[in-house]
Amino acid sequence: MRDYTTQMEAAKREIITPQMARVAEKEGLPAEQVRKLVATGQVVIPANKNHRSLDPQGIGRGLRTKINVNLGISRDCSDIDLELEKVQKAIELKADSIMDLSSYGETSFFRKKLIELASVMVGTVPIYDAVGFHMKELSEITADELFDVAAEHARSGVDFMTIHAGITRSTMEHFKRTERQTGIVSRGGSLLYAWMEETGKENPFYENFDKLLEICKEYDVVLSLGDGLRPGSIHDATDGAQIAELIVLGELTKRAWAESVQVMIEGPGHMAINEIAPNVLLAKKLCHGAPFYVLGPLVTDVAPGYDHITSAIGGAVAAAAGADFLCYVTPAEHLRLPTLEDMKEGIMAARIAAHAADIAKGCKQAREWDWQMSEARAELDWERQFQLAMDPEKARRYRQESSPQDADSCTMCGHMCSLRNMKRIREGKRVQLACN
Amino acid sequence: MRDYTTQMEAAKREIITPQMARVAEKEGLPAEQVRKLVATGQVVIPANKNHRSLDPQGIGRGLRTKINVNLGISRDCSDIDLELEKVQKAIELKADSIMDLSSYGETSFFRKKLIELASVMVGTVPIYDAVGFHMKELSEITADELFDVAAEHARSGVDFMTIHAGITRSTMEHFKRTERQTGIVSRGGSLLYAWMEETGKENPFYENFDKLLEICKEYDVVLSLGDGLRPGSIHDATDGAQIAELIVLGELTKRAWAESVQVMIEGPGHMAINEIAPNVLLAKKLCHGAPFYVLGPLVTDVAPGYDHITSAIGGAVAAAAGADFLCYVTPAEHLRLPTLEDMKEGIMAARIAAHAADIAKGCKQAREWDWQMSEARAELDWERQFQLAMDPEKARRYRQESSPQDADSCTMCGHMCSLRNMKRIREGKRVQLACN
Repeated sequence: MRDYTTQMEAAKREIITPQMARVAEKEGLPAEQVRKLVATGQVVIPANKNHRSLDPQGIGRGLRTKINVNLGISRDCSDIDLELEKVQKAIELKADSIMDLSSYGETSFFRKKLIELASVMVGTVPIYDAVGFHMKELSEITADELFDVAAEHARSGVDFMTIHAGITRSTMEHFKRTERQTGIVSRGGSLLYAWMEETGKENPFYENFDKLLEICKEYDVVLSLGDGLRPGSIHDATDGAQIAELIVLGELTKRAWAESVQVMIEGPGHMAINEIAPNVLLAKKLCHGAPFYVLGPLVTDVAPGYDHITSAIGGAVAAAAGADFLCYVTPAEHLRLPTLEDMKEGIMAARIAAHAADIAKGCKQAREWDWQMSEARAELDWERQFQLAMDPEKARRYRQESSPQDADSCTMCGHMCSLRNMKRIREGKRVQLACN
Repeated sequence: MRDYTTQMEAAKREIITPQMARVAEKEGLPAEQVRKLVATGQVVIPANKNHRSLDPQGIGRGLRTKINVNLGISRDCSDIDLELEKVQKAIELKADSIMDLSSYGETSFFRKKLIELASVMVGTVPIYDAVGFHMKELSEITADELFDVAAEHARSGVDFMTIHAGITRSTMEHFKRTERQTGIVSRGGSLLYAWMEETGKENPFYENFDKLLEICKEYDVVLSLGDGLRPGSIHDATDGAQIAELIVLGELTKRAWAESVQVMIEGPGHMAINEIAPNVLLAKKLCHGAPFYVLGPLVTDVAPGYDHITSAIGGAVAAAAGADFLCYVTPAEHLRLPTLEDMKEGIMAARIAAHAADIAKGCKQAREWDWQMSEARAELDWERQFQLAMDPEKARRYRQESSPQDADSCTMCGHMCSLRNMKRIREGKRVQLACN
C-alpha cells in the first residue's frame, strides 16, 4: 500500500512514485527532475488511484505538449457504442487524454466503461452531470448535492475534473460591468452562473473550496480550474472579467498546493494571435507556473467548419509560448456534435499544433522526429516517409492516388523535383529535363 | 495613354493611378496613402499593362494579407481543361492571385487563357518554362535565352515573376559550406544551381540584372525575388546560406527601386514557430520594407497529408509578424499534384491564416467581420452565421447533417448551450435542463 495521498505529496516528501518514473521514461528525463516539477506544481500527473488501466502521462513545464479529446453522451447523442468506438479510435490516434462531457442518459455507466478501457487520462466536468445525477432542475440542486457529483466522479476513477471555482459573486460583478459581446460561453460557467443567479448564493466550489480539496486528495484527482469567463469571440478576449477570474484561480492554486492537491489552469477561448503569448504569460504568472490547459484559442470567429484549423493556429502559438495541454477542436465546432471522421481531423490538427510547439520549445524528441522525416525525404525514400508520417495511411493513400512518370519523384514537381535533381548533381550526373 | 512606366514611377511623380485608386477603395484607405506606400516600395500593385481583365490588388504594409494559389500543366498533368476549372474555382473561393507553374506542354496557350480569364493577379516562374520554351536541355540554354523566356512571360501579361537572382556564385559558396539536410528544395533555385554547375557561369539574372529590370519596366511586372536557398526542413531553417541570399536580395531591391521596378521578396519554407517572427523582421530589414511573400512556413516536416494545416500555422504567425502575402499549401504537398478538392482545402486554410493575421494586425475590415459573426452567434441566428461563414456551404451542410432537439441550439451542447441559457437569463427566464 502506498503511504502518500497524492503525487504532489509524495514529490514533496522526495518519493519518486512509479507514476513519476513512468513519466520520466516517456519524456526522456531523469525521474528526479520530474519529481521536483511535481513537488512545485509545475507538472501534474493525473492518475486517480481508482483508474487501474492508466498508463500515466505528465503535463507541464519541460514535458511534451499533450492533447485532449472531448466526447460523451448527451440528449442529442445517446449512442454509447458509438462513443466507445470513438474512445478506441482516439487512443489509436494517440490522444493523450479523453474528457467525458456526458450530460444526459446513462452517464455513470458510460464513465465506468470509459475508465475501464482508457489507458489515457480521463477528465470530466461534474456540473454537466449534475442535473441528470440528481434528476432535478438546476436551481433545485443544493450546494452539497453539487459536491456529491464531484465526489462520485472522483470515486469512479476520473484523473482530472474541471471545476469552475473562479466564477464568484465578485467576478460576476466584473462580468456584469464588462461590455461583452458573447457573454459566458463556457457551458460549466454558464450553469454555475445560472445556479448563482437563481439561488442568490455564492459559488459553492469557491465558498467551500476545502471540501473540494478533500475529495481531490482522497483519490488524487487533479483539479482543473475552469475558465468560466473565457472569451467566446475575438472582441471579448483579455477583458476585465476574464482576468479577474484568473486572479482568483491563482489564489485557489496556492490553497490547493498547500493541501498537496495537483492543479491545472484552463484558458481561452477565442483570441487574436497577438494576444495569445501575453495571455499565456499572465496565466503562468498569476497561477504560479501551474500547467496551462487551453481550449483553442480560436484565432478567428468566422470559420465554422474549419475550427480545427483556427484552433491549431492558436494552440500552436499558445503552446510555443508555454501552454502545456491543448484541448482538441473539430471541424464540427459551433455546428454539431463531431462524427468519428471529425474527431480524427480534430486530433490530427491538435497533434500538429502540439508537435510544432514542441519543436519551437526545443524538445529533443520532437526535433529528432522531424530530422528522421527530412532524411527520408532528401533520400526520396517514400516507404520510410509514410512510416514516419503523423498519419501514415493518409500520406500513403495520397501518393498512391497519383503516380508520377518518374517513380522516385511525385507528381507535384515531377521531373523538376529539386530533391531528385540535387541528388543527381551530387552524384555527378546531369539533370535531364527535356522531353524524351 | 498613360505617361508613366510603372506604378512605382507614377507614385514617385505623385500621380494617383486608377490602380492605386482601386486598391485604396478595396482596402478602405485614402488613395494618397496607397500612393505613398507604392512610391517607397512598401506596397506593390502587380498590374501588367497587358493584363486587361485584372481587377488590381495591392500587397504590402498596411493592407490586408493576400493569398496565392499555384496551378499549371506539367508532364504528370497535362489536362488544360482541369487546370482552367481550377482557375475558375480559385477565383470563386477568393484567391487573390494565381501562379501558373506550368512546366511542360502547351504552356503558352495555357498562360494566355489564364490571363484572359483571371481578374486576379497572375504570377509565373519563367525558369520552369525554359526547357519547354526552347526545346533544349537545361545546360544548353544560353543566358540570353533565359531572358527570352522572362520577356515572353512579361509580354503575355504576367503581373509578377519569380526570379531567383540571389543564387549567385558567392551565395553558392555559402551554401556549399553550410551543412544542409535537404539541400536546395526550391525548384527554380535547383534549376539555376544546376545550370550554373553545368555551365560554370554566374547566374545571368544576377549578372545582368539591369536587363531583367528593363523587361519588368516595359510591362510593369513586379519582380518577385525568389528564395532559391529557402530551407526544406526544420533543421535547415535560418542558416548562413539562406541569410546570405537574403542580403543579396536586399541589394537587388535597391537597384530595382532606383529604376522604379516594383519588388516583392520571397521567403521560407520549413521553419520552427519561434524562428518565424525573427525571419520576417530580418527580411523586412534587409530588404528595406519590401512586401514579403512566404511559402508556408511549414512548422513541422512530419505531417504530409496535412501541410495545409502546418502552413496555416506558419503563415498566420508570419503574417501577424508582418508578412504580406501567403502562398497556399494543400494537403497534397510533398505527395502529389493537388486535386480540385485539395485546392479548396488549401485556399480555406490560407484564407484563415491571412484573416487571423489581419485581426492580429488590427485591420478594421477583418475585425468587423468577426464582430458581425459573433453577433449572429450570440443571437443564435443560424442563417446569418452561414452567410457570414468563410465557407457558407460547409457550415450549412455540417449543421443540417445533425439536427438538435432544441432547434435554437446545435447538437454540440444541445440543451446545455451556454448562449441559449445566457439568453434565457437575460430575458428573465429560468434555464430548463431537467429531462421532460
